[in-house]
Amino acid sequence: MDTYKIIEIKENVFKDNERQADLLREELKKDKTFLLNLMSSPGSGKTTTVLRTIDALKDEMNIAVLEADIDSDVDAHTVAQTDTKVIQLHTGGMCHLDADMTKQGLSELGTEGIDFAILENVGNLVCPAEFDTGASKNAMILSIPEGDDKPLKYPLMFSIVDVLLINKIDAIDIFDFDIEAVKERVSKLNPNIKVIPISAKTGEGIGEWADWIRTEIKSWNQK
Amino acid sequence: MDTYKIIEIKENVFKDNERQADLLREELKKDKTFLLNLMSSPGSGKTTTVLRTIDALKDEMNIAVLEADIDSDVDAHTVAQTDTKVIQLHTGGMCHLDADMTKQGLSELGTEGIDFAILENVGNLVCPAEFDTGASKNAMILSIPEGDDKPLKYPLMFSIVDVLLINKIDAIDIFDFDIEAVKERVSKLNPNIKVIPISAKTGEGIGEWADWIRTEIKSWNQK
Repeated sequence: MDTYKIIEIKENVFKDNERQADLLREELKKDKTFLLNLMSSPGSGKTTTVLRTIDALKDEMNIAVLEADIDSDVDAHTVAQTDTKVIQLHTGGMCHLDADMTKQGLSELGTEGIDFAILENVGNLVCPAEFDTGASKNAMILSIPEGDDKPLKYPLMFSIVDVLLINKIDAIDIFDFDIEAVKERVSKLNPNIKVIPISAKTGEGIGEWADWIRTEIKSWNQK
Repeated sequence: MDTYKIIEIKENVFKDNERQADLLREELKKDKTFLLNLMSSPGSGKTTTVLRTIDALKDEMNIAVLEADIDSDVDAHTVAQTDTKVIQLHTGGMCHLDADMTKQGLSELGTEGIDFAILENVGNLVCPAEFDTGASKNAMILSIPEGDDKPLKYPLMFSIVDVLLINKIDAIDIFDFDIEAVKERVSKLNPNIKVIPISAKTGEGIGEWADWIRTEIKSWNQK
C-alpha cells in the first residue's frame, strides 16, 4: 500500500500552547492512543528507527505514524511501504510542531483503534524542544556521526526528553564519539533520562527500545 | 592562546532585516572583510571544516571566526587553539543569526585588518536559511551520514547558498549516499550552486574548497 495524505498544517492560533497540549493529552488518554514525539537533527536516522520500531511492535499493537517536514513526502512514502497508517504533515516553513498542529495531524490521520502513534518531528535540535506537542512521552535520537558534544550545545532538547537513543553505533569505530561522556553530560541535564544505544541499520539495541515502549505504554494505560 | 570572549547577543530590534543586511555588507566592503556564513545540521563537521580552512589559508590572509551557538563555548575553545581570532556568540535560545546579531558579534570581535571572517551559524537547516546575515557569500555543509534526501526536505537552505560542501566522504562506504543524486536534486533548486565533496577529517577536497574561497575573495575585492 502506498496511499497517504499530505496535509499543509496551519499555524497555531492559540497563544497558550501548554493548555492545548494538556487538552490533547487528555483526549488521547480517552482514546487510548499513546503518542510518542520523536525528535533529532536532520539525518540522524528517525525514519529508519521508526521502521524498526514498527517491525518490532506491529504484531502486538496498532501503530500509526505522523511524518512532519518542511517539504517533501519521502518519509511518508517510506513508512507507507510497511502497510502502516501514515500521514505526511507540511509545516509551512516552520521548524517545529505545536500541540494544535499535532492535533490537526491526528484528526486527519484518525486515531480510532490506534494504540501507539509516533510523531516524527521536523529534523531540528532547537525549535521542537520549545513546544509541547501533547505527546505522552518525548524521545530523541543523537547519532554517532553528529558528535558527543551535542548535549553541551543543545541543552534544552536533552533536558526535556524521557529517552535518548544513541543511533548508528555500528559506525562508532570510524567516528570519535565517547558514549560515556554523553551519558555523563546528559545525566547532569536530565537525571531521569533513559539512554539506549542502537543501530537502526543492524537492529542492535532495538529489543531494549521496544521493551521501553511496551513498559511506558503499559504504565500509561494503568494510570 | 585560549582567550576569547563569550557574548550574549540581543534579539534584533529591526524589522527590516534585509536592509540591515545590505548595510552590513556595505560596511564590510569598506573594511575589506569578506564574511562567509557557514550553515549546516548539528554535527555535520562545521568546526572541523573551519579548522581545515584556517590551516589552508592562514599564511595568505588574516582570518577571524564567529562561533554561534545556543549554549556552550566548545567551538570557540577549539578554534582558539589555532591562535585564530575568535568569539563565541550565544543566541539566547534562538536558532539563527540575523544581520543585526551578526553585526553585534563582528563589533565585539573587531574586524580591523581581518581579510576573511567565517560565521559558523547555529546548527540547523531551517531557521538560518530564512535570515540574511549580511554575509558576502553563503556556504552549507551536508555530511554523508545525514543522507542524500536532505535537499528534498530542506529546499530553502539548498536554494540560498552559493556553495555546498559534501563532508565526511571518507565514510561513504558505510552509508547509503548517492552524491550524483544530491547534485541533481540541488541543481534543480539552485542551478548556479558549486558542489565540493570534502573530508574535513582526512583533508580530501580542502584544496578545491580553499581555491573557491580565494577566487571569491579576489573577485569580491575587485568589484
